[in-house]
Amino acid sequence: MPEKLKIAVMASGRGSNFRSLALSCLEESFPAAISLLATDNPEAGALYIADEMGIETAVVDCGGRRGSMTPDSSSKLAELFRKRGIGLVCLAGFMRIVKGELMRIYSLRMLNIHPALLPSFKGLHGQRQALEYGVRYSGCTVHFVDEGIDTGPIIIQKVVPVLQEDTEETLSARILKEEHRAYPEAVRLFAENRLRIEGRRVFIENEKRRNSDAD
Amino acid sequence: MPEKLKIAVMASGRGSNFRSLALSCLEESFPAAISLLATDNPEAGALYIADEMGIETAVVDCGGRRGSMTPDSSSKLAELFRKRGIGLVCLAGFMRIVKGELMRIYSLRMLNIHPALLPSFKGLHGQRQALEYGVRYSGCTVHFVDEGIDTGPIIIQKVVPVLQEDTEETLSARILKEEHRAYPEAVRLFAENRLRIEGRRVFIENEKRRNSDAD
Repeated sequence: MPEKLKIAVMASGRGSNFRSLALSCLEESFPAAISLLATDNPEAGALYIADEMGIETAVVDCGGRRGSMTPDSSSKLAELFRKRGIGLVCLAGFMRIVKGELMRIYSLRMLNIHPALLPSFKGLHGQRQALEYGVRYSGCTVHFVDEGIDTGPIIIQKVVPVLQEDTEETLSARILKEEHRAYPEAVRLFAENRLRIEGRRVFIENEKRRNSDAD
Repeated sequence: MPEKLKIAVMASGRGSNFRSLALSCLEESFPAAISLLATDNPEAGALYIADEMGIETAVVDCGGRRGSMTPDSSSKLAELFRKRGIGLVCLAGFMRIVKGELMRIYSLRMLNIHPALLPSFKGLHGQRQALEYGVRYSGCTVHFVDEGIDTGPIIIQKVVPVLQEDTEETLSARILKEEHRAYPEAVRLFAENRLRIEGRRVFIENEKRRNSDAD
C-alpha cells in the first residue's frame, strides 16, 4: 500500500469540516492523512478536536488585519508545511485570504470549501446571501484556491433545496451536511491523482492511479 | 369555472418555451390562456408555432439597437396588451431589455426564463458561461422581470447536472427540458394568485385561490 498523502488543514473556527476530514482519514482505505492543523485563532474550536484526535496543531499569528495575512505568517506556514512534507492544504473555515509564499508554493495543491453554489454568493455568509436573494437551491463547492476570493476551479458541488421556512441556521445546517460529504470526496480525488485542470474546468479521471511523489 | 388569465408571450427566436406554454394552456385545468404572441423579429420561428396553434401574433419593430427597445415600441406593446386584457406577460427568449411604458404597466406582472441558476451566469449564453466556468450543476430560473438584467425575484428554479463530456448543445438541451417544465409551473402559480413577494423572496402559498380581477 502506497504511503498516504499528507494534509494540513487550516481552520479559524469550530472545525466541523476539519473533523469530517479527520474522520475520513481514519478509514484505512482513505488515501490521505492529516499531519497538521494550523489556525490563526488561538480560541478555535478546531484546536480541541485536533487534541482529541491526536493531530499536531500550530497557532500562527497572521497579523491584526481581518481577512488578510502578513508575508511573515505566510512564509511561516509554508515552512511548517514544507518541513512536514505536506502535499495538500485544505482550507476549512479559514477566515483569511491566502497569499504570499504559501500561495506560491501550494498553488494547485490547496483546496477550499464554500457554503454556496459558486459562482453565486462568494465571500462571507454564503447561506445568508442565498436566503436573502431568494434562490430555490443552494449548496456547497469544493474548489482549488487561486488568487481571487472563491474563484478557483471547481472540483465538487452538492445541491440542497432552500425551503420557504428556512432561517440562516436551518439552511446552514442542511448545507453543512453536504459539506461533510463533499470535502472528503474532493480530497480523495486529489489524493488519487484523478483531477485534471483545463482552463477553469476540472476533469475527474475514472482511472485510479497514485501520484508516486505525493509524499 | 372562473375565466382564465390572459397571457401575452414575447419571443424573438424559435419559440420552444412559447410552445410549451401554449401546450400547457391547452389543458382544460390550466388557469391561463395565451391571447397573443408578440415578437420583434419577423423571422422568429415562434410565429409559425403561433400560426399553427391559432394564436394571434404581432410583429413590433423595437428599433435597430440590439438588446434595447425604443420608447415607441414599448408603448405600442403596452397598448396591444392593455387592449386585450393581458394579465401576465411572459418573456420567452425575447432578446431585448424591456423598459419604458411596458415595464411600468406590467411591473410585477411580467416573467422571464433564464437558462442558468441565477444569480450565476446572467445575460447571454448562460449555458456556455456555466460550461466555461466549470460548475457541476446548472439549470434554469423563472423570475419576475425588474429593471435589471436577470435580477428579479425568483419563482422557480430547476437543477441539472453538468457532465464532463457536455458541449454547449448537450447542456442546453438538458436545461431546455427543465425550462419546459418550469415555465408552465410558474405561470400556474401566478395565475392561481399563489405568489407573494417579500423583498427579493417569493413565497408560494399552498392555498389555491383565484385572483378575481385577473381578467
